[in-house]
Amino acid sequence: MRAVVFGVGGIGGTVAAALSLNGIEVIGIARGAQLNAIRARGLRVRTPRMDKVVRFDCVGSVAEAGLRPDDIVLLCMKTQDTAAALEDLRAAGLRDQPIFCLQNGVANERMALRLFPNVHGVTVMVPASFLTPGEIAVHAEPKLGIFDIGRYPHGQDADDTRLAQALDGSLIAGFVLDDVMASKYGKLLMNLGNILEAALGKGHGQDDLVEAARDEARADYAAHGIAFADVSMKDPRRAEHLRITDIEGVERVGGSTTQSLLRGLGSIETDYLNGEIVLLGRLAGVPTPVNAGLVALAARLVQEGAPAGGVDAAQLRADLGLA
Amino acid sequence: MRAVVFGVGGIGGTVAAALSLNGIEVIGIARGAQLNAIRARGLRVRTPRMDKVVRFDCVGSVAEAGLRPDDIVLLCMKTQDTAAALEDLRAAGLRDQPIFCLQNGVANERMALRLFPNVHGVTVMVPASFLTPGEIAVHAEPKLGIFDIGRYPHGQDADDTRLAQALDGSLIAGFVLDDVMASKYGKLLMNLGNILEAALGKGHGQDDLVEAARDEARADYAAHGIAFADVSMKDPRRAEHLRITDIEGVERVGGSTTQSLLRGLGSIETDYLNGEIVLLGRLAGVPTPVNAGLVALAARLVQEGAPAGGVDAAQLRADLGLA
Repeated sequence: MRAVVFGVGGIGGTVAAALSLNGIEVIGIARGAQLNAIRARGLRVRTPRMDKVVRFDCVGSVAEAGLRPDDIVLLCMKTQDTAAALEDLRAAGLRDQPIFCLQNGVANERMALRLFPNVHGVTVMVPASFLTPGEIAVHAEPKLGIFDIGRYPHGQDADDTRLAQALDGSLIAGFVLDDVMASKYGKLLMNLGNILEAALGKGHGQDDLVEAARDEARADYAAHGIAFADVSMKDPRRAEHLRITDIEGVERVGGSTTQSLLRGLGSIETDYLNGEIVLLGRLAGVPTPVNAGLVALAARLVQEGAPAGGVDAAQLRADLGLA
Repeated sequence: MRAVVFGVGGIGGTVAAALSLNGIEVIGIARGAQLNAIRARGLRVRTPRMDKVVRFDCVGSVAEAGLRPDDIVLLCMKTQDTAAALEDLRAAGLRDQPIFCLQNGVANERMALRLFPNVHGVTVMVPASFLTPGEIAVHAEPKLGIFDIGRYPHGQDADDTRLAQALDGSLIAGFVLDDVMASKYGKLLMNLGNILEAALGKGHGQDDLVEAARDEARADYAAHGIAFADVSMKDPRRAEHLRITDIEGVERVGGSTTQSLLRGLGSIETDYLNGEIVLLGRLAGVPTPVNAGLVALAARLVQEGAPAGGVDAAQLRADLGLA
């Protein structure tokens, strides 16, 4: 078995390092400065307990990876880049090898299933940060992450077990579930505050807005009959495996949306986080004004090239029609 | 009211011409040679009863169109280009103006509803061909097409009526429906043979393959509880409004998939036609080997840059596991 890690940012870098250190063959697919840095010097992974350079193969495209029958593919790009990645995988000859979607949101699995028969979801609980090309940090111990793993749209099979076994004893705790999408819908609830953190900065104190966004989501889920699991900080597995911890000399910059905005990326993932709640609401006639306002905010910040943390909370509340 | 016709190929050109000739203000969004030709000389529309140059405004991007509150937007690009078009519309300031999805397949409406609140479906029955930049042909009389129109995901509203009224007395017959998606799922059945026509050529004689693809689709629809309407050649409205007729000196080159392949386009729409059936099958556990084989065939033809009509029928049947 070889793990093809498609997208080697914070999440992809963590899983590539964890598998590689666990003796699994890994090939990463990365671009630009990140590719050059990993090729030249390996990937430096900094955690509360470890500061280590991990070396694994890395190439610039899936074509260069030369797909094999025993590959498993781990999609670690953001949702807005998934369609192009799937096209590349098909052109490179992917057929029935398993594809695991490690991304936030719940849209990637459906996109992958349109083109490929063997699709799996993974809920990723990994507080990783991309620091600089060739360097990531994961603010957690004793493990770097928890993965919930399962077949899409439901069930579990031998490929899920294969990935869990590859993670066994590694820096990531893996759990195979019968209904991984319930876990991913639960994770989506957690991600609905990402754009607020990105817009207002960490510790913004607008937790009632996050709760209002989550209330809309839970109303959507009820209307659509969507099951969801609690993977919040209350999930008892976190206390055992995944305690958020400082790393000396490394500030935690915030979630994936914040990191995208800080790096000036032209597209962020809010359309597939809060936007998923808006879509479900429009399909079922459930009002979702808070999430719609947050999607519009994200679009505006991207269009203006705004820095992370630069939005005024009072103005935002007024824009959302909240006092 | 102004109609923003986004994508001025065979379908977009027909609707732009029909509305413009009916006294409705139209602005087209086109690219490259098509844009230059329409700007320089107008759009020549050839039908069994008419050969006319129609002039309407045409620009190269939605930003140049300068969106207005009274606009209605008609999406006429192929599905693989919809995501980028929706991003452009948002960046250009589209908010709650109605978006009508005139494309084949059933995926565009959902994509649009993620970003915009006011989304409508249109089933387009228009045998149009793109001939050369600035020139299209429509092989039908007395009308050039029939449109079924309605709100997505269901219902009808004042915007549907507005579009139908704009078409009243025009070269297109418009019908407002309560469940336009049933009409579009019916149209999808018709489109499942497009790739066979593109691969084998017109009059390929493999109608049993098309029927097998449709049987799989109907099994999918039953499993998902998807309603569909008969918009086939048996639809009695066709005999009244839309009889396929020759145009002297203009050969009919075939459906949209054939036209894409002939023009060497790198992406064709099969992933959203036969691929929709494959996706529905994978979600519900319904086998769809014929449609999956046709999706793989389309991907291969695109990758190889194969000409339309160049596939051997016996070889194709063998590849699909059919004698």
